[in-house]
Amino acid sequence: MRRVFVNGYGVIGRRVADAIARQTDMELIGIGKTKADYKARLAAVKGYRIYVPSEKEAQAFSSLGIEVAGLTADAVRASDVTIDATPDGVGAKNLSLYRELGKPAIFQGGEEADVGEVSFVAECNYDQARGRRYVRVVSCNTTGLCRVINALVKGIGLGSARVVIARRAADPEEVSKGPINAIVLDPVEVPSHHADDVRTVIKGFDIVTMAMKVPNTQVHIHSFIGRVSGQSITRDQVIEALASSRRILLLESKVGFKSTASLIELAREAGRPRGDLYEVVVWRDSISVSGNEVMFFMGVHQEAIVVPENVDAVRALVTDVPYRESASRTDASLGIPLKL
Amino acid sequence: MRRVFVNGYGVIGRRVADAIARQTDMELIGIGKTKADYKARLAAVKGYRIYVPSEKEAQAFSSLGIEVAGLTADAVRASDVTIDATPDGVGAKNLSLYRELGKPAIFQGGEEADVGEVSFVAECNYDQARGRRYVRVVSCNTTGLCRVINALVKGIGLGSARVVIARRAADPEEVSKGPINAIVLDPVEVPSHHADDVRTVIKGFDIVTMAMKVPNTQVHIHSFIGRVSGQSITRDQVIEALASSRRILLLESKVGFKSTASLIELAREAGRPRGDLYEVVVWRDSISVSGNEVMFFMGVHQEAIVVPENVDAVRALVTDVPYRESASRTDASLGIPLKL
Repeated sequence: MRRVFVNGYGVIGRRVADAIARQTDMELIGIGKTKADYKARLAAVKGYRIYVPSEKEAQAFSSLGIEVAGLTADAVRASDVTIDATPDGVGAKNLSLYRELGKPAIFQGGEEADVGEVSFVAECNYDQARGRRYVRVVSCNTTGLCRVINALVKGIGLGSARVVIARRAADPEEVSKGPINAIVLDPVEVPSHHADDVRTVIKGFDIVTMAMKVPNTQVHIHSFIGRVSGQSITRDQVIEALASSRRILLLESKVGFKSTASLIELAREAGRPRGDLYEVVVWRDSISVSGNEVMFFMGVHQEAIVVPENVDAVRALVTDVPYRESASRTDASLGIPLKL
Repeated sequence: MRRVFVNGYGVIGRRVADAIARQTDMELIGIGKTKADYKARLAAVKGYRIYVPSEKEAQAFSSLGIEVAGLTADAVRASDVTIDATPDGVGAKNLSLYRELGKPAIFQGGEEADVGEVSFVAECNYDQARGRRYVRVVSCNTTGLCRVINALVKGIGLGSARVVIARRAADPEEVSKGPINAIVLDPVEVPSHHADDVRTVIKGFDIVTMAMKVPNTQVHIHSFIGRVSGQSITRDQVIEALASSRRILLLESKVGFKSTASLIELAREAGRPRGDLYEVVVWRDSISVSGNEVMFFMGVHQEAIVVPENVDAVRALVTDVPYRESASRTDASLGIPLKL
């Protein structure tokens, strides 16, 4: 039984905490939170122990009647590993605390790659993370890209990818972010950071990415243009490569999947907590092959896709559980693959 | 054990079917569906029996590998009551079928009021619906208004209401509806239909409503301006009246509730299926009283608010269960009130 502390209770932290609580080989010792709000109350209702950075925050929580179990440092000390899901840049600052207390930690993709010894996507490089002290789970878009590229490199010998990413501009609860009526080139310069980030996991891969923000809060859409080196490929080979890889969901428009909205509706109807899609979605009927070129649409639920990676990262760092076993346990606990 | 058929599996029907399946005194005998899509597949995964209008649809379902249990008429015949959640206007056409087979039915607010003998909001007029054959559960906005007005008439002697409704323009999955960048006066003429619809439940009440559509898919916002006749009132009396009535949730901005987005986030975090809010929400800190006038903001989750009414309507029509007992059973099965 490994004791896990989830430091940070935002979009990712809340989901990761729930996922850790579902693992039979892990114990969620608590969550770290800075702001006393309704999410803290709901965490308390769930029975999660709440830790705060200092006595100052403890008072704010108390004034709202929310019990505080202790300080962040206490929780890190009491845990075998901390999953740091604090806002971008805060994780790097927390690294010194984890080091000081001699505890391993898992960071998120909002941090620079050098915060960890390995940038992590479970299906790609679980073994490289085994026994390490500090690992970074890459961002949602990079996770989706790495799962798909890894499947296609292994399955059809993919040699390069050019990807256009239409990003959701804000998360559903981020009401002060825009745009509401524009497409923002983000950034104008090519490539966007995603290409470099993919290479932190799949070393040396030939990828260029272009990204824009669109007025949408749910799901990023990637338009994927790939090439294999040399020989031609068939559509069936592409489908087979994707279908035989983990955490990739192939969906078809003929049964109603035509937009980001339908992906979230699927997750809601399937009873997934919060309407979450842990899988990267590839539209099966968008897959188009010509000679050595393959093109398709894929979707990434930004709130949820990294949840299974965080769970697997715990096992990679502080257990002897090999990859297939870890992934099977994680997926069974989260209802992956989605039954449809 | 009352046998219930839910005819129609759209936004409302899917939720009502799940709610019926949770009642210990009801049996969901199946759902009626016309289109073979992923929602039909998920219904089959849940073990729901699927009924279709004719052999034509049955073939479409079979071609997607979805088993059909029979025709709609078979299901109506086999049930004690049908909940008709078909699209607006289709319910009225189905009435002749229910009549012909001698079976009671519950319709939705998209139908004209004369489809039923009673327009129904549980907390307002459960007893008027008892033993009837045909009842109409009113629309989401009317349900929210009736719950609040009923509480305030009983609690503080509310005499009139002027309400401005900022409607969500489309449901999350309705990707072909707009607007995406306009506020649509809907209709330009005053009053909107909601005022008359409230009076189908609370007879003769002095209410005028104005409605507009805004680019949003989740939650309607009502700006409520009410008056009591004669004497002045206090803010505490208003809060007490609302807090002591069923299915009204008072929330405060200081713990993070400032927008429609936060209401849905609350439901997701609380683990509600699909992120559903069955309660009408009133912002406690918006409640403002001056003399005999009271003003506040309220929110209506259009996808979910009528779910408890449909369950109670079943008991009103085909059981001897009195109101408080029915409402308690319904609320317990749906996790109302939300624990916060």
